[in-house]
Amino acid sequence: MDARKAAADYIASLAASTPLPVGFRLSTTSLRFFPKERPGTKPLEMNLSLILADEPAESFAFLTTRNRVVGASVQLARKRAEGRHFRGFLVNNRVANVAVASGEKDAERILTHLGNATSIPVDELLSVSTGVIGWRLPVEEILESLPRLSEGLGDAAPVDVARAIMTTDSYPKCRSVDLAGGHITAFAKGAGMIEPNLATMLVFVLTDLDLDRAAAEAALKHAVETSFNRISVDSDQSTSDLVALVSSRRAGAVDPKEFASALRRLCEDLAEDIVRNGEGVGHVLRVAVRGTTSTKDATALGKAVINSPLVKTAVYGNDPNVGRILMALGDCAGNNDIRLDPQRLSVRVGTEEVFRDGAFCLSADREQRLASYLRSAAMEPGIKGFPQHDRCVEIDVEMGQGDAAATVVGCDLTDHYISENADYRS
Amino acid sequence: MDARKAAADYIASLAASTPLPVGFRLSTTSLRFFPKERPGTKPLEMNLSLILADEPAESFAFLTTRNRVVGASVQLARKRAEGRHFRGFLVNNRVANVAVASGEKDAERILTHLGNATSIPVDELLSVSTGVIGWRLPVEEILESLPRLSEGLGDAAPVDVARAIMTTDSYPKCRSVDLAGGHITAFAKGAGMIEPNLATMLVFVLTDLDLDRAAAEAALKHAVETSFNRISVDSDQSTSDLVALVSSRRAGAVDPKEFASALRRLCEDLAEDIVRNGEGVGHVLRVAVRGTTSTKDATALGKAVINSPLVKTAVYGNDPNVGRILMALGDCAGNNDIRLDPQRLSVRVGTEEVFRDGAFCLSADREQRLASYLRSAAMEPGIKGFPQHDRCVEIDVEMGQGDAAATVVGCDLTDHYISENADYRS
Repeated sequence: MDARKAAADYIASLAASTPLPVGFRLSTTSLRFFPKERPGTKPLEMNLSLILADEPAESFAFLTTRNRVVGASVQLARKRAEGRHFRGFLVNNRVANVAVASGEKDAERILTHLGNATSIPVDELLSVSTGVIGWRLPVEEILESLPRLSEGLGDAAPVDVARAIMTTDSYPKCRSVDLAGGHITAFAKGAGMIEPNLATMLVFVLTDLDLDRAAAEAALKHAVETSFNRISVDSDQSTSDLVALVSSRRAGAVDPKEFASALRRLCEDLAEDIVRNGEGVGHVLRVAVRGTTSTKDATALGKAVINSPLVKTAVYGNDPNVGRILMALGDCAGNNDIRLDPQRLSVRVGTEEVFRDGAFCLSADREQRLASYLRSAAMEPGIKGFPQHDRCVEIDVEMGQGDAAATVVGCDLTDHYISENADYRS
Repeated sequence: MDARKAAADYIASLAASTPLPVGFRLSTTSLRFFPKERPGTKPLEMNLSLILADEPAESFAFLTTRNRVVGASVQLARKRAEGRHFRGFLVNNRVANVAVASGEKDAERILTHLGNATSIPVDELLSVSTGVIGWRLPVEEILESLPRLSEGLGDAAPVDVARAIMTTDSYPKCRSVDLAGGHITAFAKGAGMIEPNLATMLVFVLTDLDLDRAAAEAALKHAVETSFNRISVDSDQSTSDLVALVSSRRAGAVDPKEFASALRRLCEDLAEDIVRNGEGVGHVLRVAVRGTTSTKDATALGKAVINSPLVKTAVYGNDPNVGRILMALGDCAGNNDIRLDPQRLSVRVGTEEVFRDGAFCLSADREQRLASYLRSAAMEPGIKGFPQHDRCVEIDVEMGQGDAAATVVGCDLTDHYISENADYRS
């Protein structure tokens, strides 16, 4: 297939399937700047996106990173979460504005100008940043771009914002569901294999469905638990992670349970999109751990598998080196006091059982079948702009200790990851 | 410098500086075998090493992995540790003998034959394995090699065993100290950047110094705490890690405190050798964390830095992307409930202060100095057989919260690591 056509088809199908909920307007623009902290004279490009509710929203919720070093965006988001109303976000995709002495002041100054230009109180606006840590925002260049941005309001669709907030993501990530006569539409950037310094994951969920603030908060927390909290690209957590939900309440009322359940599925799909999107990702891994005594243990064991560099590199090489899965489980159990009895443990890769009754069940035939299973789930590196397929390497772990379970999604570790990250900022 | 000559010089200097303590004899040999679990007809080579005390030793100690999935070697080691006497080790460098139904039976059968050939009770012998997980030991081929091995006893020096136990290590690791008229000599294999499936770290410490078993156990535990427990190549812990100490007590008495302190320095040096030795390692990182309220917290923070793929890839690229160090510290603190106040935190890389008073102190000049500092500590990939230098990238973190401290040693993450691990077993 022609890659350019495939990318165009993908964008067109995204655009068609992700309508903007009623009561929001979007806008994007871009600018060039010279970071003062970096030697050299090559300018960098930055995209700005504006996401605004037409009226002050009362139903909104933000969830932020657990990292103890947080950027000005996250500090501001925590303040804004205390307010009664919220209008929207100004997003840049180049400078994270983290650990900069003037970080919060710079952001407030920009938002004050934006508030003046749009007649919105500054404390109903949030500046969201992703990009290099330790650099100052190019404040003057951003101020100059604000008129362009506010004049363009209404011109952009969700897919346009999904593209503008990309850093080194290889394609835009946007999902939508129809529900009770309204919509939930979400777009995300982030944490792809190759975008660690810009490590931030940003997710914006917009809806016109009518639910109150408590219900919005509860639904978002519930959805994040089994989606964005169950993925890992490189086990590093950003200083700026943010998941935000804003409702215009312009469509009909919705049963909060039904909303929560639809949001959860949406977020799980979007989380998998995030893992799949990195240019360096060769395989997506989905690890289901069952039979633990708690969901926490199941999640920890699953994450140990998807975060093990040895498991990740073996999968990259289509090498069914299943011993490494056992190593990762045993390591995690031993160091976190999780019950693991090899006699009760069984492990499957795809449809093949590889371990039971305390021993591997391997043979030359089975190895060949496993290797071809891994090859069939592989993506071709270097193809950008659209997801190549939706296949995963499925690993099932039965611990035989209890009734709890969790599924986590991760990816392999490839030389593309290394080369993209070894000198990201240049 | 000519690499072959440099390697020969290194081996000669190791041989001259690492005498065999009195009361031990060593032997090595090799064999070829076809693993039944793997398709293909190419035979694999395996080295066998025999390390024997001349008389039953009463002073010995073993420390084993915390991984919950352990190999037959580790299971046997835990049994042998309950005995009164110990004579020595049979080591293979190719098949880990982990999670194999017949694993312990295979090992015992081999040791029974070895005991008959050397007139040593089988429960004073330990079979130590490192290599692929999930494959059976080639029992018949090993049995055929035992006569060769026992006839050769006394022919090998510590450096020869240090070479024979190598898997994909790039050079042998062996250290010795003179003390109180006797010696402590230790050799290690392991956990280099590129040897993950053989992930095992094995360390054998031999001494003729006269100390009792309780003192030997205490000294080993103490030494491991600040050496092998403070290094990480890829954050994966093997199913077979083993550190063993055996004393022949043939030299003079030694003050247990003096012994413990010498052993600790020896193990710290050897631990750094292990990190430095991997072929794929481009930089060694030494992270000193001070000012925490506990050593455990300091160790966790340090390990978060050396295990962060983002820090590791930036160092590989000689890119002073110091924001990633902050990200790793904040991530670890936030997810492990460790106090971190950015206002009290300061971070140095080499001699350059990069963070203090809640903000980065970066400039184009400083960035250039940091980049050349990283370049000066880099190793050239592909040079095998000897350590190129002993430089480290030094990262100092002052948390400003308390009096505890810890230093950890790790390495960068390179594309050599990926390519070595993507299909290790072929």
